[in-house]
Amino acid sequence: MVTKKILLKEEDIPKQWYNLAVDLPSPPKPPLGPDGNPVSPDMLAPVFPMNLIEQEVSQERWIDIPEEVIEILYRWRPSPLRRATYLEEYLKTPARIYYKDESVSPPGSHKPNTSVAQAWYNKQFGIERLTTETGAGQWGSALAFACKLIGLECKVYMVRISFEQKPYRKTMMKVWGADCISSPSSETKAGRDILAKMPDTSGSLGIAISEAIEAAVTDETGKTRYSLGSVLNHVLLHQTIIGLEAKKQLESINEQTPDIVIGCAGGGSNFAGLAFPFVYDKINGAEIEIIPTEPEACPTLTRAPYAYDHGDTARMTPLLPMYSLGHTFVPPPIHAGGLRYHGMAPLVSQGVTEGLLNPRSFHQLKCYESAVLWAHTEGAITAPETSHAVACVIDEAKKAKEEGKEKVILFNYSGHGLLDLSGYQSYFADELSDYSLPDEELEKYQEALKDFPKPE
Amino acid sequence: MVTKKILLKEEDIPKQWYNLAVDLPSPPKPPLGPDGNPVSPDMLAPVFPMNLIEQEVSQERWIDIPEEVIEILYRWRPSPLRRATYLEEYLKTPARIYYKDESVSPPGSHKPNTSVAQAWYNKQFGIERLTTETGAGQWGSALAFACKLIGLECKVYMVRISFEQKPYRKTMMKVWGADCISSPSSETKAGRDILAKMPDTSGSLGIAISEAIEAAVTDETGKTRYSLGSVLNHVLLHQTIIGLEAKKQLESINEQTPDIVIGCAGGGSNFAGLAFPFVYDKINGAEIEIIPTEPEACPTLTRAPYAYDHGDTARMTPLLPMYSLGHTFVPPPIHAGGLRYHGMAPLVSQGVTEGLLNPRSFHQLKCYESAVLWAHTEGAITAPETSHAVACVIDEAKKAKEEGKEKVILFNYSGHGLLDLSGYQSYFADELSDYSLPDEELEKYQEALKDFPKPE
Repeated sequence: MVTKKILLKEEDIPKQWYNLAVDLPSPPKPPLGPDGNPVSPDMLAPVFPMNLIEQEVSQERWIDIPEEVIEILYRWRPSPLRRATYLEEYLKTPARIYYKDESVSPPGSHKPNTSVAQAWYNKQFGIERLTTETGAGQWGSALAFACKLIGLECKVYMVRISFEQKPYRKTMMKVWGADCISSPSSETKAGRDILAKMPDTSGSLGIAISEAIEAAVTDETGKTRYSLGSVLNHVLLHQTIIGLEAKKQLESINEQTPDIVIGCAGGGSNFAGLAFPFVYDKINGAEIEIIPTEPEACPTLTRAPYAYDHGDTARMTPLLPMYSLGHTFVPPPIHAGGLRYHGMAPLVSQGVTEGLLNPRSFHQLKCYESAVLWAHTEGAITAPETSHAVACVIDEAKKAKEEGKEKVILFNYSGHGLLDLSGYQSYFADELSDYSLPDEELEKYQEALKDFPKPE
Repeated sequence: MVTKKILLKEEDIPKQWYNLAVDLPSPPKPPLGPDGNPVSPDMLAPVFPMNLIEQEVSQERWIDIPEEVIEILYRWRPSPLRRATYLEEYLKTPARIYYKDESVSPPGSHKPNTSVAQAWYNKQFGIERLTTETGAGQWGSALAFACKLIGLECKVYMVRISFEQKPYRKTMMKVWGADCISSPSSETKAGRDILAKMPDTSGSLGIAISEAIEAAVTDETGKTRYSLGSVLNHVLLHQTIIGLEAKKQLESINEQTPDIVIGCAGGGSNFAGLAFPFVYDKINGAEIEIIPTEPEACPTLTRAPYAYDHGDTARMTPLLPMYSLGHTFVPPPIHAGGLRYHGMAPLVSQGVTEGLLNPRSFHQLKCYESAVLWAHTEGAITAPETSHAVACVIDEAKKAKEEGKEKVILFNYSGHGLLDLSGYQSYFADELSDYSLPDEELEKYQEALKDFPKPE
C-alpha cells in the first residue's frame, strides 16, 4: 500500500530556520533609503522590533526557533506531507506527486508560520500591539490568530472594498480578538487625507500599508510595531520550516530528492518556505528544477525587470532590489488576491537572477480548471493562489508521462479555498476571463522607477 | 513533552464498523408502516439499495468496511486525535481533554464517513444517481463529494432560504459536480404542489426530503436512490469508525478509557460515531458518562417524549421509535442548523431510554462563548453544532477541577466553522438571544403524534 499521508512526529519538528541569504552565490543587495544609501537597521527601528531587524540582516545559516514558538506551532505542525496518488492515477503519470499541506493551520494557510514568530519576537521586545494591513484577509486573520495566542493587541487595516464585500475574513479576525477597520480610516493622517480627496475610494493595499505603518510609528508609548506578511527576509526565513519538514518527511519514506519543486508566488513567502531548503541542495549540486508560479495577469518574475522599487504603492518602504511591475501597478481584478503584488521578495528575485529558479506564469481559467480536477481527484478545494501551483504540477506530471520518466514532484499546498468560494462561483458562472498584461502597460508602470538606482 | 496530536498510521485504520444494535440490552424496535405494522426490508427497496437495507437491520456486531471505501477514506482518515492542552492550561483543570478532529475531511465534517460508504454501496448495487435534501448544506456537500469520487450523479434539493442566503455551500457542491437546486422546485409533484399553494415559501427540510424521495422512487430507469445523512442505523454504523479510531489512539499512548464521552446530537450520527464503541464498553462494565448535547431551543433528548413519529415533516418516512418534539415542530432560527432536527436516531434514543446515555442541553450564547474560548486557546474555529460539545467539555473540565479529579474527557470535534462565520458575526453583533421552548409549545407539537402507536 502506498502511504498517502507522511506524518512527522512532534518531536521531529525542525528546531532551526534556514537562512538562504548566506548561501546565495553573491551577497544580497541592501535596501536603499530615499537618498540612495543603504538603510541601516536603526532606521527600521520605529517600524519593526530590533530582534526581527537582526533576523532580517542575519549572516547565520541556521537560526534557532524559540521553544515557545514551536509550542504554538504544534497546534497544526508538523503539517502532513501528502502524496497525490488519486491525481497520479487520473493522469496515468509515472511521476510521484507530493504536497506539503499548509492548509491545516487554523487560519487555513502557511501565513501563521511567520505571524506566530513575529508576534512572539515583538512580545519579547516589549511590544504590546501590532498593526498590519490586509487585502482579502488571509494575512490579517493569520496575524489576529497569532496575537491572540501570544497576548498582543492587533489592529488590521482592511482594504475597504474587501471589508465591505468579504465579511467572513473580518469575522475570523474578530473571533481571534483583533480590531479590524476599513481602510482608508479617519484614524490616521494618511487615511484622512485620502478620504478628504476621495471619499468614495474603494481603498487599496498601498493606502492600508500607509495607515498601518503610520499607526505603528506614531504611537507615543513606543509599544506598537508594524508586521508584514511576506517579501522581507525574516518572513521568508520563518516559512522555511515548510521545506525543512518536507525534507525530513521525504527521507522518512526513503524518497529521493525531488526533481521538481513548485510553489505559487505573490510576495514570495510560501514559495520560499518550501523551496529554499531545496535551493540549498541545488547550490550544492543537486539537479532540481525549482519553479515559482504566478498569474499571467501579474507577471512579476516572468516579465518585469529586476530593479530597485518601493514595496508599497504609497512609497513608505525603502527601495528593495526585486523584480517589480512598478509600485503604481494596478492589477486586474483576478481572484487570487494573494498573487496580485507588484513586487517580489528580494531573496526570491535574486534566486531568479542567479539562475536558481525558473518562474512560470499561468492564466486563471487554467488554474480554476486545475483546481476543479484537484477537487475531483484529491478531494479538497484549493485556494485560488494555490491553484497556480496545481496547474504547474499537472503540466509537469503530464510531461513526465510523455517522457516516460518517474519524476518526483513536490509542491506547496499553501491554503484551502473555503473562504474563496466566490471565485469558484464566478468561474462556474463564466464570469472570468484570461488577461495578459499588454507590453505598453508594463512599460507605462515602469516609468515610476526611472529615477531609482539600478541593482548591478 | 505532551503529544498534542495522536496520529494513527494508515494501515491501522479500523477494518470493520461496530453495530451497537446487537449489544443493546433489549432488541431495537422496528420502524412501523402507516398501518402500524413493522416495515419489511422490501418496502424500503424503492428508496434505498438492498445492501444498505441489510445493514440497516443487520444482526452482526462487526461489519467489514469495503477496501475501496477505505481507499477513499484515506484522503483524510485516520483523523487526528488531539489533546486540548492549551484549553486545559487556560482552565487549570486536572482533566485531560482529547478530541477527535473530524473537521479535517474536505467537506469539513464527519458527514463524508457515511456519504462515501453510501455512495459506494449504491454504486455496487448498480445505482447511477443519488438524491438527497440539504438544509445549510453540510450533508449536501458531503454527498456531492462522495458521488464525485465514486462516480455517481448527485442531485441535491436545498431548502430555498439557504439556497438563496448561503451561496458558498452551493458552490462547494458545484465544485464536486453535483446538481443543486432550490426546493421547492418545479421538478417534482411535491414541489409543484407547494409552489402552487405558496409561491413565496422559504422552503423547509420536510419539503426537500419529499422532493428527494419522490425523485428517487419515480425514476423509471430504477437507477436512482435516496440517501440520508443521519438518524438511520446504517448511517450511525458508518460513523463508528470515529470512536474505533479514537480507542486505538488512546491505547497507543497508554491512556485509560475515558471517564466522559461527549458529542453534539442533531440527528445523532456524529455523537453515535464517537460514542457507540464506548457504549459497548459501558454495557460491559466500564464506568463512562456518555453525553449527547443539544440546543436548549431544540431539546429532543432532554424534554421530548419517547414516541413513534415520522422522521420528516412531510410524513413520507415510516414511524421511527425515537425521542421526538413532533414532526410538525418548527425550530427557532438558531444558527446550529445541524441540530435543529425534531427527532433523534432510534439507536441513540434507545440508549437514552436504557440509561446508557445522559443527554444535556445548552443555550446558544454559552455555546458561542465556549467556541470563542476554544478559538482563543486551541486556535480553531468550530462549527456552531460542535460548540454544543465544547460547552459541555468546558463544564466538565471545570467540574473536574472543583473535584480535583484527573478525569479523561473525550469529545467529537465534528466540524469546523469556516462556512458558518455568519453565525459568529451575529453573535458579535449581539443579534442572538437564548430561547427555551415553552411547555405549551412542546405539548402543542405532540398533538400530531397522538394517534400513533407508542413504543413499549
